[in-house]
Amino acid sequence: MRSFDASRLTSGQPGNSSQAPFISPVRYRLLCSSLEEDGVRMADSGGGPAARTVLQQCLQARLQVQPAGEQSEAEYVQISRGMVIYVCFFKGASEDMLPRMVSTLLNLRLCESSSGKMVSVLELPGNVLIVPQATLGGRPKGRAMQYHQNIGKEDGLRLYSAFVSLCEKELMAASAEVTVKHGTYGNRQVLVLDTNGPYTHLMEF
Amino acid sequence: MRSFDASRLTSGQPGNSSQAPFISPVRYRLLCSSLEEDGVRMADSGGGPAARTVLQQCLQARLQVQPAGEQSEAEYVQISRGMVIYVCFFKGASEDMLPRMVSTLLNLRLCESSSGKMVSVLELPGNVLIVPQATLGGRPKGRAMQYHQNIGKEDGLRLYSAFVSLCEKELMAASAEVTVKHGTYGNRQVLVLDTNGPYTHLMEF
Repeated sequence: MRSFDASRLTSGQPGNSSQAPFISPVRYRLLCSSLEEDGVRMADSGGGPAARTVLQQCLQARLQVQPAGEQSEAEYVQISRGMVIYVCFFKGASEDMLPRMVSTLLNLRLCESSSGKMVSVLELPGNVLIVPQATLGGRPKGRAMQYHQNIGKEDGLRLYSAFVSLCEKELMAASAEVTVKHGTYGNRQVLVLDTNGPYTHLMEF
Repeated sequence: MRSFDASRLTSGQPGNSSQAPFISPVRYRLLCSSLEEDGVRMADSGGGPAARTVLQQCLQARLQVQPAGEQSEAEYVQISRGMVIYVCFFKGASEDMLPRMVSTLLNLRLCESSSGKMVSVLELPGNVLIVPQATLGGRPKGRAMQYHQNIGKEDGLRLYSAFVSLCEKELMAASAEVTVKHGTYGNRQVLVLDTNGPYTHLMEF
């Protein structure tokens, strides 16, 4: 089945030989109207997700939450066996999406149990380390990366904090043995990771 | 700018209230023809990328390339400062795409130089560790992950090897001080990672 990203249809100049030709703006508008007549839902988020997460399994992970100061040592959080969730929110993300997002991530069978079976981090039960990772929102422009679709700083902090709280609530309800740790939003995420295979997955919402 | 995934346009039944209504197959075919007349490129990969990579910056990374055997110890490769490339190929990926893929990854300004400026791994110059990571192709179905869009084993090995060779060629041409190491395709990728912030990025091709 064919697919195409209509958001790129009017970029560039038709006939530009250095890029695939695109349809004219007139035809594009006719296309959208035609589809809307048929009741096709049009995404208004620029075609991208509201949140992007990368998941890695770990034996141990240590994350700096406060850099060393003039009179203080650096501070760290640490988890033993479990899952690292790198998270990035985009413009258009809202608190409404968080319960489903948390439920999905904590219930996906991504963790290897001692018997070799794949189980969720709730079932393992495993610890969770949440790493704010705005860089996941990057899109290349030439040789540089741009982060134009990323959520703004204040909204991002609010959503991130709510995401962390929800994870804590759900994980710690499942087991008293495990914990959720998280990075400081906006800081450099100095991370050390020890794995028996990260089994890196991408999940978008 | 609006966008939509046309590959879903003829799924389901028009008027099905549990899903967004879709356009009729007749109108879909007219749509595709119309766009092709305009020269719009149609992706035949089921709407997904041909390759997916996740990039992380590291101070040091160690990867097991051979597990311990009955009479042998485990073998590892290791890099110092540089970039880890986790790579997954999908059905429809071919060798044609590799030169541009390698060039993009090695020239994107993702690495932090000692002055704090963002430079490419070629400019740093940094080492590269390539980790085959088929799990990146996962899509959730209920609580399980499915990997149906992943490239087959033989083609995957062939492409992965070619990708590694191209990276070696391009990186080592840029500097004699740096190296490319890579994981063993199909093995468990036992990885230990030390970072000053992984600056995790997603790049799809």
